Amino acid sequence: MYTRKFRNNTKQSSETPEVMITEKKPLERRTAVRKRNESRAVSKLKVIPLGGLHEVGKNITAFEYEDEILIVDCGVAFPEDDMLGIDLVIPDFSYLTKNSEKVLGVVITHGHEDHIGSLPYFLKELNVPIYGTKLTIGLVETKLKEHNILNSVERNNVNAGDTIKLGRNFKVEFIRSTHSIADSVALAITTPAGVVVHTGDFKIDFTPIQGDMIDLQRFAELGKKGVLLLMCESTNVERTGYTMSERSVGGIIDKIFDDSEGQRIMVATFSSNIDRIQQIVNSAVAHKRKVAVVGRSMTNVVKTAGELGYLNIPKTTLIDVQEARNFSDGELVIITTGSQGETMAALSRIALGEHRQIEVKPTDKIIISASPIPGNEKSIYKVINELIKKGADVIYDGLMDVHVSGHARQEEIKIMHSLVKPKYLMPIHGEYKMLRCHKNLACELGMDKNNVFVMANGDVLELTKNSAKHYVNAVPSGQIFVDGLGVGDVGNIVLRDRRHLSQDGLMIVVVAMDKYSGEILSGPDIISRGFVYVRESEELMDDAKAVVNEALAKCERKNINEWAYIKTLIKDTLRDYLWQKTKRSPMILPIVMDIE
Amino acid sequence: MYTRKFRNNTKQSSETPEVMITEKKPLERRTAVRKRNESRAVSKLKVIPLGGLHEVGKNITAFEYEDEILIVDCGVAFPEDDMLGIDLVIPDFSYLTKNSEKVLGVVITHGHEDHIGSLPYFLKELNVPIYGTKLTIGLVETKLKEHNILNSVERNNVNAGDTIKLGRNFKVEFIRSTHSIADSVALAITTPAGVVVHTGDFKIDFTPIQGDMIDLQRFAELGKKGVLLLMCESTNVERTGYTMSERSVGGIIDKIFDDSEGQRIMVATFSSNIDRIQQIVNSAVAHKRKVAVVGRSMTNVVKTAGELGYLNIPKTTLIDVQEARNFSDGELVIITTGSQGETMAALSRIALGEHRQIEVKPTDKIIISASPIPGNEKSIYKVINELIKKGADVIYDGLMDVHVSGHARQEEIKIMHSLVKPKYLMPIHGEYKMLRCHKNLACELGMDKNNVFVMANGDVLELTKNSAKHYVNAVPSGQIFVDGLGVGDVGNIVLRDRRHLSQDGLMIVVVAMDKYSGEILSGPDIISRGFVYVRESEELMDDAKAVVNEALAKCERKNINEWAYIKTLIKDTLRDYLWQKTKRSPMILPIVMDIE
Repeated sequence: MYTRKFRNNTKQSSETPEVMITEKKPLERRTAVRKRNESRAVSKLKVIPLGGLHEVGKNITAFEYEDEILIVDCGVAFPEDDMLGIDLVIPDFSYLTKNSEKVLGVVITHGHEDHIGSLPYFLKELNVPIYGTKLTIGLVETKLKEHNILNSVERNNVNAGDTIKLGRNFKVEFIRSTHSIADSVALAITTPAGVVVHTGDFKIDFTPIQGDMIDLQRFAELGKKGVLLLMCESTNVERTGYTMSERSVGGIIDKIFDDSEGQRIMVATFSSNIDRIQQIVNSAVAHKRKVAVVGRSMTNVVKTAGELGYLNIPKTTLIDVQEARNFSDGELVIITTGSQGETMAALSRIALGEHRQIEVKPTDKIIISASPIPGNEKSIYKVINELIKKGADVIYDGLMDVHVSGHARQEEIKIMHSLVKPKYLMPIHGEYKMLRCHKNLACELGMDKNNVFVMANGDVLELTKNSAKHYVNAVPSGQIFVDGLGVGDVGNIVLRDRRHLSQDGLMIVVVAMDKYSGEILSGPDIISRGFVYVRESEELMDDAKAVVNEALAKCERKNINEWAYIKTLIKDTLRDYLWQKTKRSPMILPIVMDIE
Repeated sequence: MYTRKFRNNTKQSSETPEVMITEKKPLERRTAVRKRNESRAVSKLKVIPLGGLHEVGKNITAFEYEDEILIVDCGVAFPEDDMLGIDLVIPDFSYLTKNSEKVLGVVITHGHEDHIGSLPYFLKELNVPIYGTKLTIGLVETKLKEHNILNSVERNNVNAGDTIKLGRNFKVEFIRSTHSIADSVALAITTPAGVVVHTGDFKIDFTPIQGDMIDLQRFAELGKKGVLLLMCESTNVERTGYTMSERSVGGIIDKIFDDSEGQRIMVATFSSNIDRIQQIVNSAVAHKRKVAVVGRSMTNVVKTAGELGYLNIPKTTLIDVQEARNFSDGELVIITTGSQGETMAALSRIALGEHRQIEVKPTDKIIISASPIPGNEKSIYKVINELIKKGADVIYDGLMDVHVSGHARQEEIKIMHSLVKPKYLMPIHGEYKMLRCHKNLACELGMDKNNVFVMANGDVLELTKNSAKHYVNAVPSGQIFVDGLGVGDVGNIVLRDRRHLSQDGLMIVVVAMDKYSGEILSGPDIISRGFVYVRESEELMDDAKAVVNEALAKCERKNINEWAYIKTLIKDTLRDYLWQKTKRSPMILPIVMDIE
């Protein structure tokens, strides 16, 4: 149930709200009253998504019970097109830092950027222990090392199947899952209010590349005992059917290897998709090819995953890219980053002939083993076009099934719902349309629509054994921009200026003026950037100067030497003139210098 | 055959190149020699794509024979993401304006922007007659009116099936075609060198909404007689199978209408897709609903198409959007622009609650009857999310088949090849990867790969009855940017500045200096925009000023008052300081004012 704007800040939401659904028997009611007298509040579980709702990325959820907070995941989002110059987007942590004494730690479901990427920024603000499976912690450690905080952070390795106790109120069980990165887990979080199952990212892969399949039985067992809330991911909920097994890609890659005798093979994929890398390696071994790895993140992941035993590359197979020259094309496979057409990634640089070590040959076979993430289509097509122009034979998604998703489609999500059979559902991880689609799916499966909570970041779902209540906009949440070393120093005003500058450039008008007489001592000079190609627009620039001169002359005649007035006059006059002449609105910056 | 870089400018290419394939008999050879003596050159047909290759958009091809040039289509492209602030991209017409006395006119295949959008810009430079079917010319006329050049341009209406003679050397036959806009035609261009078939954009739709189906028999007839060159579109050549008939969408829309009793229905689609609009209208009529049209281009097209008889809306069905309030939700259909999430289009404004006349209701049924064009995914998803947040039930591509493409897939392209059976093939309309894919398809059908020419804009294919030769980069071609009223005044330097400004903003350092003594009379003052949020970064800004002051003091000590030196010093010092502190590189503009 929505109680929109009923409570809209942190302060209010910490008061005791009404219980929405009451099914209590007389005895229980008395107990509740006694408890309330003891702690001045009936304790409730608050589930607080701080990221990942109405968006793809920066997943993070806080679970609060009495004086304890448990955090699940801590990811980044990548900037939208209009976030000019921004490198990363991280969640607003202020609710957690304000309640720092409550925070027990961060539990991580898997090692993807949208689940671990914000950890360094968070841990710098609030140093708490982290918990995750071996590979996940390994990938986090690489990150912490880059931020020079590895040694100060307590890391705890767990195995799928383990249960840990956190504080007085939380028990967290790690349930084996399958996804496009190894060692993924779902979570069963036992609280005094009941059990919450958090799926993390998952697909139901019956034939994963390594380890066992997702532990469907455990989900069923938990469901049988009773699950209060299911938090289930929604990435592919709009797609009908069933996501193919990762293993299906292996067969196709192998077939391409069969058909590529004598050709050098390059494969671009997500560096975190260790199972995909393993399958490429398997095909390489079967075809007696050496494997060289290119791209910073690919090299990092292969190293970490290899050391931790998640990637099995025979010593004689892995070579340094420098050694590649010692082998013929038909004996080589190059695994590279850049499957999304990222400008700085290895594949882009290879395509543009800017890579130091690898040059495309007309005899190359190049496999793009990834689908474009929405928004990346044009970048990756550009890379493909360049590679084909250089004569390479490029196989990409659409031509052959060289990629599968790591996310559950509708039929898999239905299986999860049917095993867990929760009292309440919160669709997570996705744009609003996906969360809504997930709600519809749940209702088709028979769930009461009042028990499904499509929420937003910063909302709170307050749970007791028998009730759930949705508080809209109850705690601070939002986007913090990372730009270079700056965290949060670029906000919407700065972005608005960048957008303005990006559209029509700028024009600076500078005048030096006698502080006392108001006489113009130098200028006005006009400098423009990003507006017109000045050399071919001399007339326009001369006329613009004349227009400013005229406005200044008017001020002189009227003996006006007030800065603010003169600046506004220059700005308005020039803006109107330029709009009339060009239908463009550059940023106009008038600068008046006082000379004593 | 590729003769890359053999000739790379206009001057050279007007000389007589070698004939590549010679199958001449002695008599013919003598005739050729005599002809060469007469005209000093064996006449050849030059096919010159000036747009539409290695890109999607701005389609334009010139056909040159002796002293005559015929132009086919004259479209725009929409700016890429990195073309900041650019409104439209038009072709470089300089080859045509340099040869203006040769140009006979422009023949247009259909009324889509990527085929007609550059006409006003071209006709302002070179006023020549235009030829097209009734609806095409009607849509062009709306454009010419907007540019105030309607009356000065000679427009010629033709019908599918007509043949017109242009100059001494060209006969153009208009062949009935099917596409996502009515009145589309393909062309058969008869020249002394042979017949060229130009498909324009097409699909093979056996059940089009109006008019007859594509004239497959005529393609076959031409093929039987012998076609020298097929220029065939490549938009969907990467897709297997067959594009569904436009009529298939009608059935689905009708079903949605059946299921929407009592709800207001909104449908967003491409304004140019008149057949889609007709089908929506048909469903509206069948369900006794009134139709209101929203959005400038939708209103324009409905008016033009209605007047010309391409759209049949019963008078009692079409209402003004103002009248909508007189009807209940269940009696209304609103047809609107904005199916690509364009920020300024009606649907975006409706979604954001910024539309003057239409407000979304939770009971609305909204159909997005279009697929996202690559690059538009995020914009349209944003609009869909907003609409769903307002409670509307939104049906979009992926959930139901509410859209079909207007472009031929592989099986249709195979049919076209098999009917026309050309001697030579030039794949047109598409990115490089599509043109290459088209070449592969042709070769699979048995074509000799040496007879397929994957070309680039500005290349020339020189044809005789028995030969074809590909000259790379033979005439000028390229992109001209339209920004506001400016055509071509924004080039790569301006764009580079816009990109720089968009990433990290700018910092202006202004100093007033005694012209003679070099003494600093005022400043340095630092002004920044789009760099950091200044109010929260005072320390950084103060330190930046100190760094500049120090650099200036050094100059004063050394008695340096050379502008250029001081500017460079300020720039370098500040750049290094800011990079070290922030890892950002704003544009730095040092301004030194001389005071006499």
